[in-house]
Amino acid sequence: MQYSFASRTHSLLTSPLRSVQKLAKRDSLISLAEELPAEELFPVSALAEAAGSVLSADPRSLQYGEAEGYGPLRQWLSESWSRRKGLHMEPDRILLTTGTQQAMDLLVRSCTNPEDTVLVENPTSPGLLQVLRLHGVRMIPVRSDHDGVLPEQLAELLLKHQPKLFFAAPNFNNPTGALWSLERRLEVLKVIAGTSLLVVEDDSLGELCFPGSPAAQPLPPLAALEERQGEQVLYVGSFSKTVAPALRTGWAAGPSEVISMMTAVKLMADWQSSMLIHRMLHHLLLSRHFHLEEHLSALNREYVTRLKLMDQLLRRSAWSGASYELPKGGMFLWVRLPGGLSGDVLLKAAALKGVSFLPGSMCSPDGENHDYIRLNFTHPGRDELMLGMNLISEALREFTARS
Amino acid sequence: MQYSFASRTHSLLTSPLRSVQKLAKRDSLISLAEELPAEELFPVSALAEAAGSVLSADPRSLQYGEAEGYGPLRQWLSESWSRRKGLHMEPDRILLTTGTQQAMDLLVRSCTNPEDTVLVENPTSPGLLQVLRLHGVRMIPVRSDHDGVLPEQLAELLLKHQPKLFFAAPNFNNPTGALWSLERRLEVLKVIAGTSLLVVEDDSLGELCFPGSPAAQPLPPLAALEERQGEQVLYVGSFSKTVAPALRTGWAAGPSEVISMMTAVKLMADWQSSMLIHRMLHHLLLSRHFHLEEHLSALNREYVTRLKLMDQLLRRSAWSGASYELPKGGMFLWVRLPGGLSGDVLLKAAALKGVSFLPGSMCSPDGENHDYIRLNFTHPGRDELMLGMNLISEALREFTARS
Repeated sequence: MQYSFASRTHSLLTSPLRSVQKLAKRDSLISLAEELPAEELFPVSALAEAAGSVLSADPRSLQYGEAEGYGPLRQWLSESWSRRKGLHMEPDRILLTTGTQQAMDLLVRSCTNPEDTVLVENPTSPGLLQVLRLHGVRMIPVRSDHDGVLPEQLAELLLKHQPKLFFAAPNFNNPTGALWSLERRLEVLKVIAGTSLLVVEDDSLGELCFPGSPAAQPLPPLAALEERQGEQVLYVGSFSKTVAPALRTGWAAGPSEVISMMTAVKLMADWQSSMLIHRMLHHLLLSRHFHLEEHLSALNREYVTRLKLMDQLLRRSAWSGASYELPKGGMFLWVRLPGGLSGDVLLKAAALKGVSFLPGSMCSPDGENHDYIRLNFTHPGRDELMLGMNLISEALREFTARS
Repeated sequence: MQYSFASRTHSLLTSPLRSVQKLAKRDSLISLAEELPAEELFPVSALAEAAGSVLSADPRSLQYGEAEGYGPLRQWLSESWSRRKGLHMEPDRILLTTGTQQAMDLLVRSCTNPEDTVLVENPTSPGLLQVLRLHGVRMIPVRSDHDGVLPEQLAELLLKHQPKLFFAAPNFNNPTGALWSLERRLEVLKVIAGTSLLVVEDDSLGELCFPGSPAAQPLPPLAALEERQGEQVLYVGSFSKTVAPALRTGWAAGPSEVISMMTAVKLMADWQSSMLIHRMLHHLLLSRHFHLEEHLSALNREYVTRLKLMDQLLRRSAWSGASYELPKGGMFLWVRLPGGLSGDVLLKAAALKGVSFLPGSMCSPDGENHDYIRLNFTHPGRDELMLGMNLISEALREFTARS
């Protein structure tokens, strides 16, 4: 039998992202392509304790809950943001999602029609690009310099396209690791003030802020800097990178009307997230067996060590002519390959040797950045990282030797 | 600021289902409106044991997994269906979702364009109707008699509309509780054979099959009866009603091409479900502390007791003129109100007294069935059920006394 599919789904099956993901699943392969945290640091026993406590306390932990998510966990987020980030968001302006990816999908389903125009910080995360493509939304890339997106270009694009949405990640962009300066954040907010633009701020990596850098304290998110908080910025993030991905818990927080519509779409999309997980996570966050801030410090100390190792390996001769900026946080190193070599071409050679990474073209609305690659340094342990980088170096050498 | 929303989202916010759901959340209210299992019977301690074991065995339980879901759990489903239902479906034809609702949403996103025509067994579940409405799909209702949907009408509609999809729930339809006869199942399969129709079989309630009825063993699902299994039937269901809703675990299983496309859409929609939950559930299903079939027997014994109580209460004078058929399984009683009274009107009066139910109009693509109501008998305990039914009776008496 022939099965017929929705017209825009074509882009999903032919997506190169999908082949990289498949590649990365092969057991023999070392993956520097994925977005995985270090599993050695998961709070395993504290979560086991949380599961036991929550289940024995109340069988309703296993029942259906509310579409917007477990109230006390939203309350915890509200208080934590207020204390740690200067972001004041009432719990009823917070929707718990199963992660940043779902938050983006719900938002785009709530707010856009096909052919609508949106602005996208360029480069950006491949997951977001997938969502926008499936919805048939027109993406306009916004350029950046060292301090963040360019306010003049943003102003120009606003005038020209009157876009509904602008997707940005000021704290450790995926893939570049870029951190917008405080001044730039304020300038951007000034540019959008009075327009009907909604900024979607992805802060998924914002807590991965490395010690020893000038920005050892995270900068306030855009959402905390706007004059009337919760008006023009939707604040999106998750516990996937800070506690554990399998908790499938993230959020969107912002304008009540938008949150309310996203909640209605969530009801339809998956009814609600897991009450059991929400209660476990809430229990964990209040538990004396776990301190989020200490946990984050340990995580960041480990990640910066892995980043330094990767930096050392990139100084070897195979990489001469490559360029990159050392990020102050996040999970990725964004490397420009020498001599205009294409990341897609290098990936094919590297995969044959048993290692993968993300080619830069997958992080761009229009397939630009083809001479960049994204390397993940948070998941592979020391040995794996060294072996993986050696294999990429080998592949690289084959190309540079030729030219 | 004015926020602008996607054009079809309008239907979500104005949905009467939403107001019933809001109503049902008020603590003072007894709800016979929802689709909740009895929480007294959740396998709480076996799940706590599972959580502890899984977490201590492998920290990767907290890591990202695969979009299609945890392999051993798909393997378990495959074997269990094969043994218990005569349904032979390889694990790679199974996608784990967060429930039936997500399975329906992913399917509709994968297979339909706006304005496409689909057939829907009438009445049907309000959750499915929401999905189809948001996607802008044209729904054609298919009528039923005591044995299931009418094959002649189905044949006629197939010819006339050449629909892509047909949504049906042969085992204990939500809301009616109807069970298609074996003969009717075979007739329906004959009608669709050779066409390009995909039947989406919702078997969410199939295991809630009550003792003492001729159908004390569930009838084989359509998916098990088609000549080449996995060709024209997509088999959808979940653990929400059999183990616990907060596990957020369901499935879609069927044609590889369809499963593969739904998996790609899931990657984009929420990346993947929770590996932790999948491993916990798999551990539970293999555990000596839990036997699924015994658990289902206990559940069904309890539910049939509650159903009998509801049946007794419906025989009181307030309900004279109402009609219903006692279901052989499922979670709902579908009652036709006396004298053409509207379920929506009765709900308003009942809600003022502190009780809610689902008006029939919400279960129909075109708002038909307005003189029906859907009563849930699985969640409320004995006292709550009696009080709730008394309050509805009171409201009902006010209308029948007038006429």
